[in-house]
Amino acid sequence: MFKECFDRLRREGALVHSITNHVTINDVANIILACGGSPTMAESAEDAADITTIAGGLNINMGNIDGINGMMIAGKKAAELGKPRVLDPVGAGASDIRTNIAKRLMDEITFTVIKGNASEIKSLIYGEGQTQGVDANDLDIVTEENLEENITLVKNFSKKTKSIIIMTGKIDLVTDGDSCYVIRNGREEMTLVTGTGCSLSGLLTAFLIANPNEPLVASAAATAAMGLAGEIGWSFMVKGDGNATYRNRIIDAIYNMSGEDLEKGAKYEIR
Amino acid sequence: MFKECFDRLRREGALVHSITNHVTINDVANIILACGGSPTMAESAEDAADITTIAGGLNINMGNIDGINGMMIAGKKAAELGKPRVLDPVGAGASDIRTNIAKRLMDEITFTVIKGNASEIKSLIYGEGQTQGVDANDLDIVTEENLEENITLVKNFSKKTKSIIIMTGKIDLVTDGDSCYVIRNGREEMTLVTGTGCSLSGLLTAFLIANPNEPLVASAAATAAMGLAGEIGWSFMVKGDGNATYRNRIIDAIYNMSGEDLEKGAKYEIR
Amino acid sequence: MFKECFDRLRREGALVHSITNHVTINDVANIILACGGSPTMAESAEDAADITTIAGGLNINMGNIDGINGMMIAGKKAAELGKPRVLDPVGAGASDIRTNIAKRLMDEITFTVIKGNASEIKSLIYGEGQTQGVDANDLDIVTEENLEENITLVKNFSKKTKSIIIMTGKIDLVTDGDSCYVIRNGREEMTLVTGTGCSLSGLLTAFLIANPNEPLVASAAATAAMGLAGEIGWSFMVKGDGNATYRNRIIDAIYNMSGEDLEKGAKYEIR
Repeated sequence: MFKECFDRLRREGALVHSITNHVTINDVANIILACGGSPTMAESAEDAADITTIAGGLNINMGNIDGINGMMIAGKKAAELGKPRVLDPVGAGASDIRTNIAKRLMDEITFTVIKGNASEIKSLIYGEGQTQGVDANDLDIVTEENLEENITLVKNFSKKTKSIIIMTGKIDLVTDGDSCYVIRNGREEMTLVTGTGCSLSGLLTAFLIANPNEPLVASAAATAAMGLAGEIGWSFMVKGDGNATYRNRIIDAIYNMSGEDLEKGAKYEIR
Repeated sequence: MFKECFDRLRREGALVHSITNHVTINDVANIILACGGSPTMAESAEDAADITTIAGGLNINMGNIDGINGMMIAGKKAAELGKPRVLDPVGAGASDIRTNIAKRLMDEITFTVIKGNASEIKSLIYGEGQTQGVDANDLDIVTEENLEENITLVKNFSKKTKSIIIMTGKIDLVTDGDSCYVIRNGREEMTLVTGTGCSLSGLLTAFLIANPNEPLVASAAATAAMGLAGEIGWSFMVKGDGNATYRNRIIDAIYNMSGEDLEKGAKYEIR
Repeated sequence: MFKECFDRLRREGALVHSITNHVTINDVANIILACGGSPTMAESAEDAADITTIAGGLNINMGNIDGINGMMIAGKKAAELGKPRVLDPVGAGASDIRTNIAKRLMDEITFTVIKGNASEIKSLIYGEGQTQGVDANDLDIVTEENLEENITLVKNFSKKTKSIIIMTGKIDLVTDGDSCYVIRNGREEMTLVTGTGCSLSGLLTAFLIANPNEPLVASAAATAAMGLAGEIGWSFMVKGDGNATYRNRIIDAIYNMSGEDLEKGAKYEIR
């Protein structure tokens, strides 16, 4: 089914409006192009509603909290129009202000998907943060040992928020409250490229736009595609290459990936 | 004559002040360096006038509309000092606010060159937009079939605005109202790299600064150089490469391009 | 000793908070990851103090002067907590406003290190600027001929500011007022990649965080590492590569560099 999701995106395209941080904004735009979508990244509050209206869906990456007004306007408009809307609560837990902004967004807007690393998602669940900057705290990481309890945790949070929850890490969990995709794609070295999480949010929004009737499968497909791109990209690394080249290789891998490649390369179980 | 334009730029340099969007700002800086110029990208309204004064010319890319005050101050200063000034009306037509900001800039400042894709330029001409995000709408695209009418259109718009008009696409049109360069360089895949249009605006401003007496030829030379860079860059693509690598290859091609390469590789007619 | 500094950074990590310009923000994040650190780039004044508190140190790159409030708050907090804090006075000398902002920051905060190119540092010393955009003016450049007087100049400025001073160029000077490291790593072509100076500031902050008891050696080690990365990165360049690929190669070289590589490759004398 991942194949159909990706094929549909390649065939039909998806205009993704991203309000995102300045660190990785270029990668988000290029990965959206790589997967068959088109990016628009208007960050001003002034035309946030207009741009959301012409877009197929909205990707809110909370990295630049000064953009909160535009995020709120765009998010409400997307909800009003029934368009897919993604929240990436970057740095939730790293500061009280940041956690509170995430909560304000979640109070005002029901998101189609909320996607974060383990520390970000857990700070939203428990209301307090141990996030270290933008990376997940070791204590929060999902392992084979604590998998069961983490699945229960995200399922409950999904039911509470009425959003699909994606909690990323070595093992990615994607759930709508009933089923949980447990995805084991990706490579450790992806954490040494800034913004692979931000890129996933852009990619994910494109998948959601193209597959409006299957948001859970689309979410799992996008998450697996990102991890698989990390694996394929790494296979092209040669002597002298490092994280800067790897950054390009990951996007390149999405560019060259077919629906069939994704179907074959995705490693997951449903729990 | 393209050769002389590029050789002069390589020889004399050009300090380009760009007020541009955050998505592609790094590419704009690196392509300016690649062609022999130097970038300065101060985006604050606070020293917009000062920085424009020390620069050789100004590149206003309207992508980040929150920067409108700085754009206006810098643009007026560049006009006052008689320095080349370029307007890239990104997303004009995508929202009323954006179209109006472009018009305000054009009302207050006579630009040396206005450069946009077909949908952006047409939204400025017709006063209403069909722009889909930052990419041109299919209906607006210049083809061999509608070439003649599009040439007339941009010539008239050039006369009206007293600006050189560059309308980019599969076929690029560059006109001062009298002559129109019809340029057929470039590759379709360039549209899958975010910001090739923004990069052209930076490159163009460098060409204009170095060639103050020949703005039309300089504009056509820069436009052809960008397309040619897309062709040369593509020729270095190997298995596994995608749009992220292509992004680098395009800038690299400018870095390695000589005036002679440009002269030989440029494909154009004058109408 | 450079070896020990770099090994310690690789072993212990360093959470670097950077408030930096939008042109090169992605490179700064990726080079921090490449050297073994973790980046956090919150630019809002709203949580500047909170993020600085959880970070190991602070990198203020003055490129985006609209961020001055956040810089001031974060800088004072870092000083209060005794954390390493770096000032990169980008464009000081290019406008009066910019020079004055640098001075305000220096008046309010004693920085661990102030790092700039020759024109930036000299505009801070002499109080007036000849900076051309973001690049050093030819008159200011350190050469073998004027080396002695430049060493005296930066030593005196270090004593006055109670900060380590790094003045970068073909020859880099790093001094705490008593000793001056004269570093001869690097390549001319690094000036054709935007933001190698900004990247150094990020790298430097990581080195300072990991080596709190040896700020001078850590500063010299980071400066030599950056130059060496330029040399190693260049050695991997092949036909068709230009400044965009070189950009990646430099970061890749940091990613692959060991403490031992740095020790062997660093070219310096102490004066």
